[in-house]
Amino acid sequence: MKVTVSRKAHFNAAHRLYNSEWTDARNANIFGKCSNPHYHGHNYELIVSVKGEIHPETGFVMDMKVLKDLIKSEVEEPFDHKNLNEEVTEFKTLNPTAENISVVIWNKLRAKIEKDLELNITLYETPRNFVSYNGDMS
Amino acid sequence: MKVTVSRKAHFNAAHRLYNSEWTDARNANIFGKCSNPHYHGHNYELIVSVKGEIHPETGFVMDMKVLKDLIKSEVEEPFDHKNLNEEVTEFKTLNPTAENISVVIWNKLRAKIEKDLELNITLYETPRNFVSYNGDMS
Amino acid sequence: MKVTVSRKAHFNAAHRLYNSEWTDARNANIFGKCSNPHYHGHNYELIVSVKGEIHPETGFVMDMKVLKDLIKSEVEEPFDHKNLNEEVTEFKTLNPTAENISVVIWNKLRAKIEKDLELNITLYETPRNFVSYNGDMS
Amino acid sequence: MKVTVSRKAHFNAAHRLYNSEWTDARNANIFGKCSNPHYHGHNYELIVSVKGEIHPETGFVMDMKVLKDLIKSEVEEPFDHKNLNEEVTEFKTLNPTAENISVVIWNKLRAKIEKDLELNITLYETPRNFVSYNGDMS
Amino acid sequence: MKVTVSRKAHFNAAHRLYNSEWTDARNANIFGKCSNPHYHGHNYELIVSVKGEIHPETGFVMDMKVLKDLIKSEVEEPFDHKNLNEEVTEFKTLNPTAENISVVIWNKLRAKIEKDLELNITLYETPRNFVSYNGDMS
Amino acid sequence: MKVTVSRKAHFNAAHRLYNSEWTDARNANIFGKCSNPHYHGHNYELIVSVKGEIHPETGFVMDMKVLKDLIKSEVEEPFDHKNLNEEVTEFKTLNPTAENISVVIWNKLRAKIEKDLELNITLYETPRNFVSYNGDMS
Repeated sequence: MKVTVSRKAHFNAAHRLYNSEWTDARNANIFGKCSNPHYHGHNYELIVSVKGEIHPETGFVMDMKVLKDLIKSEVEEPFDHKNLNEEVTEFKTLNPTAENISVVIWNKLRAKIEKDLELNITLYETPRNFVSYNGDMS
Repeated sequence: MKVTVSRKAHFNAAHRLYNSEWTDARNANIFGKCSNPHYHGHNYELIVSVKGEIHPETGFVMDMKVLKDLIKSEVEEPFDHKNLNEEVTEFKTLNPTAENISVVIWNKLRAKIEKDLELNITLYETPRNFVSYNGDMS
Repeated sequence: MKVTVSRKAHFNAAHRLYNSEWTDARNANIFGKCSNPHYHGHNYELIVSVKGEIHPETGFVMDMKVLKDLIKSEVEEPFDHKNLNEEVTEFKTLNPTAENISVVIWNKLRAKIEKDLELNITLYETPRNFVSYNGDMS
Repeated sequence: MKVTVSRKAHFNAAHRLYNSEWTDARNANIFGKCSNPHYHGHNYELIVSVKGEIHPETGFVMDMKVLKDLIKSEVEEPFDHKNLNEEVTEFKTLNPTAENISVVIWNKLRAKIEKDLELNITLYETPRNFVSYNGDMS
Repeated sequence: MKVTVSRKAHFNAAHRLYNSEWTDARNANIFGKCSNPHYHGHNYELIVSVKGEIHPETGFVMDMKVLKDLIKSEVEEPFDHKNLNEEVTEFKTLNPTAENISVVIWNKLRAKIEKDLELNITLYETPRNFVSYNGDMS
Repeated sequence: MKVTVSRKAHFNAAHRLYNSEWTDARNANIFGKCSNPHYHGHNYELIVSVKGEIHPETGFVMDMKVLKDLIKSEVEEPFDHKNLNEEVTEFKTLNPTAENISVVIWNKLRAKIEKDLELNITLYETPRNFVSYNGDMS
């Protein structure tokens, strides 16, 4: 029996949408106020979901304390109260849209979670805008 | 990499559940207070989800401003502060259950969203009742 | 020690904003789409708060089951799945704005709750619009 | 057209995580404060989702009143205000983790819901921890 | 200028409503299923509000990190994952209703917060039932 | 009869906590990661509440559309997608703590709302931290 277990976390960060290969005018035209050079920010809400067999001895798919600590070390500590464009390596050259942030988080967690567990990420940029990524490369 | 982006919206409307081919007694029997001839209403909360490739230049699957405007023109303007049975063409002959409303919204948005993007609709009729539709015809 | 106890409830209803002493044109001008003659509707969320001494034997200010039943008989049964303008006596001549609905609910509950308990009503018309009334006549 | 309809419900219960085949020391070591012999408890929030064809006469996949009553008889009445370990048969020998509770609820509802309807359960143990189960045996 | 600052926290606990001076029959009659001798439990959500002058140098009424740590040491550590009746000194002889829990929490925090700051507690026992206490002895 | 009407709004902004009269070391020591020179950010949720008599002709304390537009021009347009420290005049010399932001918003709205209406502001900096201000100068 495969069950999905999910854990919510959050981090607060500044960012701007910016493509370094475009002119400033084009960035402003395409990204509008989201490209403000002085940055804006969000309370990002993150849901990490892991699907797998229930371990018969523990009744767990994965110990939630382990998952909580993993989210803390891989996501909260490097991202919380940071400027994503300026201070997070992955976004030095990658535009920190919600889509790209979700892929970066997925890749970081995927490397640390057992291979027989499926992984899905949902990231709320605002209460009205959110994205999900499960590694789908189709 | 295929990512799903979602946008929340809402509209307030009146409706009643009613099958015009049934007697009033049968409508009352099957639909109960939901068939009140004087109507009742809801704050409908809508989540529109679109899945596709991240565009390498923008970092977007779809520009959220475009999706927001599309939901406004296709759903909010024709449905908000309306009586669904009396004033919305699609429900002149179709019973406005949450299921049927979600199919109508999906069809309207499907016609306006690029074909290589997958579309899913979730519609909350109340905080405790909601439906989802992704075009599944299986 | 005076403690405030609160209970949430809800009801779904249709309404329109309408002043019967005004012309239709004036109603449309002042109330806009909220005055649609075909009605629209809401999921009203209600919070009823009662403040008083903790009863030393029970540890209760008021038994929540009693409060829940009182909200059911005084508010949910007469208002839920109804057209407020057409079917609820109090709004035959009173415009069912959130403000007026909150006063009507407060008056109905005030008559049934012990006089030494203070009463406050909060009514959400939508997740973004809400009103409160505590009987203030100052 | 296959639509998913969902209904939220809740129940409050006490439990402890405990594997009866382990020593007390091992239970304490693996489950930490969740294994407190005096129990702790949660407000469990449950979402039951059913997917199937829209019935052309009613516009329903499944009558929500029927689903609500089924959740009441199968889940709320046997679980609400109970000690899961002590008073619920299924957990006399099964560790009441969120994962195992979701499988027990799914099995109870599966037996009562028409076979051509797909069933999914989501169970929130806290606002930050939740699990989902859809019968996946792959 | 006096501003109110608030911080949310939570704890999960088991309890039963019980007056030790009553017979078991009277406890069962008055408290119903809330008096189940095997206990039930809740995810308690706590909001602690502190009102006072903004300190001109920091722009804070009170440092939220200090308030967070105080809630942790005074409330979360002694109450979380505990059986309130069995393991928390204050409720050995005091019925752990939401009202009484809020007074106990208020008293514990009042002793640790500067005297010129006003203190209010709101405690959610369930998403639909909550209580507030501000030390009102009138 | 005096009723309170409330409207929710939101804006996303970057900020850092910073006292320009302190050394960088002191800023870092007192404000911790909230003083990151590269900024971080939040989804600020704002509730504006106005208390006054119900106007007998309209049934309104204040037209919500007017209040919505006022919040848009006074708060959302100047603050949304901005860096509060760098781009908002009021915070050039005032530390943008949640407390100070709430006072600034209250002062801006107070100047535009009729004098016989009471005004209260609640500002969520995160889902767990929020402040309220009603002009209290006592």
